[in-house]
Amino acid sequence: MSQIIAPIPPTLADIRNAVERIGPYAHRTPVLTCAALDAMTGASLFFKCENFQKVGAFKFRGATNAVMSLSEEVARRGVATHSSGNHAAALALAARNRSMAAHVVMPSNAPAVKKEAVAGYGARIVECEPTLESRETTLDAVVAQTGAEIIHPYNDPRVVAGAGTAALELMTDHPHLDVIMAPVGGGGLMSGSAIAARGLSRGIRIIGAEPELADDAHRSLEAGEIIPSIDPQTICDGLLTSLGPLSFAVLTSHLERIVTVSEDAIVHAMRLVWERMKILIEPSSAVPLGALLEAKVDLTGLQIGIIVSGGNVDLDRLPWSPGEI
Amino acid sequence: MSQIIAPIPPTLADIRNAVERIGPYAHRTPVLTCAALDAMTGASLFFKCENFQKVGAFKFRGATNAVMSLSEEVARRGVATHSSGNHAAALALAARNRSMAAHVVMPSNAPAVKKEAVAGYGARIVECEPTLESRETTLDAVVAQTGAEIIHPYNDPRVVAGAGTAALELMTDHPHLDVIMAPVGGGGLMSGSAIAARGLSRGIRIIGAEPELADDAHRSLEAGEIIPSIDPQTICDGLLTSLGPLSFAVLTSHLERIVTVSEDAIVHAMRLVWERMKILIEPSSAVPLGALLEAKVDLTGLQIGIIVSGGNVDLDRLPWSPGEI
Repeated sequence: MSQIIAPIPPTLADIRNAVERIGPYAHRTPVLTCAALDAMTGASLFFKCENFQKVGAFKFRGATNAVMSLSEEVARRGVATHSSGNHAAALALAARNRSMAAHVVMPSNAPAVKKEAVAGYGARIVECEPTLESRETTLDAVVAQTGAEIIHPYNDPRVVAGAGTAALELMTDHPHLDVIMAPVGGGGLMSGSAIAARGLSRGIRIIGAEPELADDAHRSLEAGEIIPSIDPQTICDGLLTSLGPLSFAVLTSHLERIVTVSEDAIVHAMRLVWERMKILIEPSSAVPLGALLEAKVDLTGLQIGIIVSGGNVDLDRLPWSPGEI
Repeated sequence: MSQIIAPIPPTLADIRNAVERIGPYAHRTPVLTCAALDAMTGASLFFKCENFQKVGAFKFRGATNAVMSLSEEVARRGVATHSSGNHAAALALAARNRSMAAHVVMPSNAPAVKKEAVAGYGARIVECEPTLESRETTLDAVVAQTGAEIIHPYNDPRVVAGAGTAALELMTDHPHLDVIMAPVGGGGLMSGSAIAARGLSRGIRIIGAEPELADDAHRSLEAGEIIPSIDPQTICDGLLTSLGPLSFAVLTSHLERIVTVSEDAIVHAMRLVWERMKILIEPSSAVPLGALLEAKVDLTGLQIGIIVSGGNVDLDRLPWSPGEI
């Protein structure tokens, strides 16, 4: 992004305001439980189902909070981002809900289905070369031309506050959680969840989970500085990005730890959720459960809230081979 | 089954009693909606999600109602059935919940995974040859030996009353439905749904849906007599059975019609529900939506309740080819 600075993190009050702001647009998603998975993990799991969220992912919360908090003057100029994932679709729909323009810079090699989703929500797609440099210069050009407000997918306190509303809702429904877990990619979901959880409970344990093959957040917290993720090969396509200054600061101060999970455990966990809970979740969403199944952290007997980040999967490319499990 | 007679159908009062009886054991499943599917069908759809039911199917309601309504004396002798599907697992779990014996006659060629599910719930499996005659003589022998009560999967008013509780809950949550739809196999779910719906609403339209390739119920209602289903080839493995005397009588008196649906429409509808609603449903559950998408019946502008019968699918054998849709 053009201006990667360390913004001031949102507070619990910001997240509460975000709940009000996104209420008319976002689903208050259900919290599901599963006796079979409880038996397998020896814990009581409470799944906050953002796979049922608009656009199929928690990203709609942050995008909506950002869009709906713009002043009228800024809103008239529109919003802009570069993304080829759920954030692009979420921002497009959020902008349409406010009848304003959204400009999305997407690499020329982005899958057609993703471009169609973004275009289907009425956003303007601006193609660029598939390099970070081209993305950023193209975004700068769009902003110079339109005056649009850049909405970064996670290095933005408005987005993080929106992401935190899922955990806030979860803990409102289940106030006695001992632990909250979420997957860590750019860290926006984990940051919002951590701020909400710590704000509501002094004692709650806050644990992130990321793939072993994209363990940059784990290494960043160990090193005390942001270590970028370089071409990670995990199947978790939602967890490929590196921490930003905002999420790095929040995770450093709030997290007990980040556990890393093998690809096998992620696939196993994903398939178990499909088979036992009868819901579609994307690989990224399965990482916290994978950590529990792999016994990467001992949370036996505890009540654990898990943020299920999304359910956007390609049904023609499922990550298991026939006969597995 | 040994004694295929025409039992007296259950009444709305029986279904209300069943709601109380199964309450401690069965999930009160959620009703989900989907704006995208509403837009595609031009109607307002309310999906009663029995895929989230215990054992992954509505069958648990009927089995539980039957088991929990037995006298102490009968219960001591156990229950028995022959089935290789969801009814067997449902009866096994229901019996375990009452700490009583369940004897399940299964053909020797039944899939290992199905035997394991039934055995996992603590039932005794009695193997037989894979013929109807062997099933029935084996079941008779089990009953002669144990005195167990036979619980037929649908030709039993206790089972039908239990099945009807899903529609009763749906219409309690959404009293203004114009139409109720369910898939038709043996007709137990459709019978219970019809009795509940007509009991609660004089004007509601009651419509069944079955695969074109297993249209025996449609033909039976046309002919005025039960026409058996002979080796049907549909992917809807829950809809292979023929009507029984009880369901034939109820469907004849309550149904507006049974619409038949192509295999392509069923697969398309199933995949749409997975992609748009992020829930797993089995092919049988997709038949009513398939009928709407295929415009086999014009219900534009109406509020339609659809009973989603179950979510037990083999993830290694999904019925679509890469690139479809």
